[in-house]
Amino acid sequence: MDYTLEKTAAADHALFPLLVRRWSPNAFSPEPVDRETLATVFEAARWSASCSNDQPWFYLVATRDDAAAFETMLGCLEDGNIKWAKTAPVLAIGVARLTFERNGKPNRWGYYDLGQSAAYLTVQAMSMGLWVHQMGGFYPEKVREVYGVPEGYDPVAAIAIGKMGDPSVLPGYLTERHNGPRSGRKPLREFVFTGRWGEAAF
Amino acid sequence: MDYTLEKTAAADHALFPLLVRRWSPNAFSPEPVDRETLATVFEAARWSASCSNDQPWFYLVATRDDAAAFETMLGCLEDGNIKWAKTAPVLAIGVARLTFERNGKPNRWGYYDLGQSAAYLTVQAMSMGLWVHQMGGFYPEKVREVYGVPEGYDPVAAIAIGKMGDPSVLPGYLTERHNGPRSGRKPLREFVFTGRWGEAAF
Repeated sequence: MDYTLEKTAAADHALFPLLVRRWSPNAFSPEPVDRETLATVFEAARWSASCSNDQPWFYLVATRDDAAAFETMLGCLEDGNIKWAKTAPVLAIGVARLTFERNGKPNRWGYYDLGQSAAYLTVQAMSMGLWVHQMGGFYPEKVREVYGVPEGYDPVAAIAIGKMGDPSVLPGYLTERHNGPRSGRKPLREFVFTGRWGEAAF
Repeated sequence: MDYTLEKTAAADHALFPLLVRRWSPNAFSPEPVDRETLATVFEAARWSASCSNDQPWFYLVATRDDAAAFETMLGCLEDGNIKWAKTAPVLAIGVARLTFERNGKPNRWGYYDLGQSAAYLTVQAMSMGLWVHQMGGFYPEKVREVYGVPEGYDPVAAIAIGKMGDPSVLPGYLTERHNGPRSGRKPLREFVFTGRWGEAAF
């Protein structure tokens, strides 16, 4: 059964189909993601751009087929996210390196470049029929402790990956969130400026 | 004349075509990007994901058809980047808001979410035949002063956008960089871990 729910972005300009379709579902199918498909998702993160090609992105990953490992990662999420993320077949946590590998100096693009790689990961996943929901609601210090994340690396985002699933198995407010309208966006005039901060470019 | 130079990523897993093609050229054609196309590039940034849908991304943009505005933005780049970026038809600077709009508290995903939006912008640009080269080499404090960027917002990345151009007009070392092999990437086993930091997932 295909539970894919389309929520086309109410875009003011005609977007590339994959981008106009993207949203962050709450209902995931537990159906496993095969190993090659999952590797390809991270391969997309691998080929992202980064400042000086430093590649400051790292990912911890847990799949449902290893129940203990999956529970361990699930236990690093905030309760509100556990409620829905527990149905996903794959969980991951994106970790940024905060110094340049080549010289150990602070890398002010560590978070930025991790974010880019997560976006490419998402595009790749969607191109293969998967969906992605990122979460800020998790416990970075618990992740550090549980997985032995070294100093100088910061766990930034938890990520659920999988096909969409049956929203009726979720608590009611999450079913509603999943089935409800896609969240809106501020218009271009409020964030693309020209000449001077605040002067709309479009 | 089409100067597009393909540098297919030496990917270990079969990537979505648009991602496997992406690289950061040095040679841009000065051919203008029409207004609707440029708006669509930023529309993709608009529909990116962000923590609590805070949308902490902002862009300053300058196009070659306004020579004075273009020179002003070009003047915010480091010399090494001016040498090639001056041929691009569009320059932009991505700016992160470092606090949540709704409550003014620190947003630790400001840079991360700006990076995601820049990646979507890049995917959209490439889907329309444009290419993107991001730069860390610019002067954030000069940007702040010239454009009046408020406190709490940080200029993070400069961005050149346009079609590829003739690399022979560049200084020799940049022609070589443009025409040379695509930069490599560390393998998955060095950044995708499972169970414990450093244990390869693939």
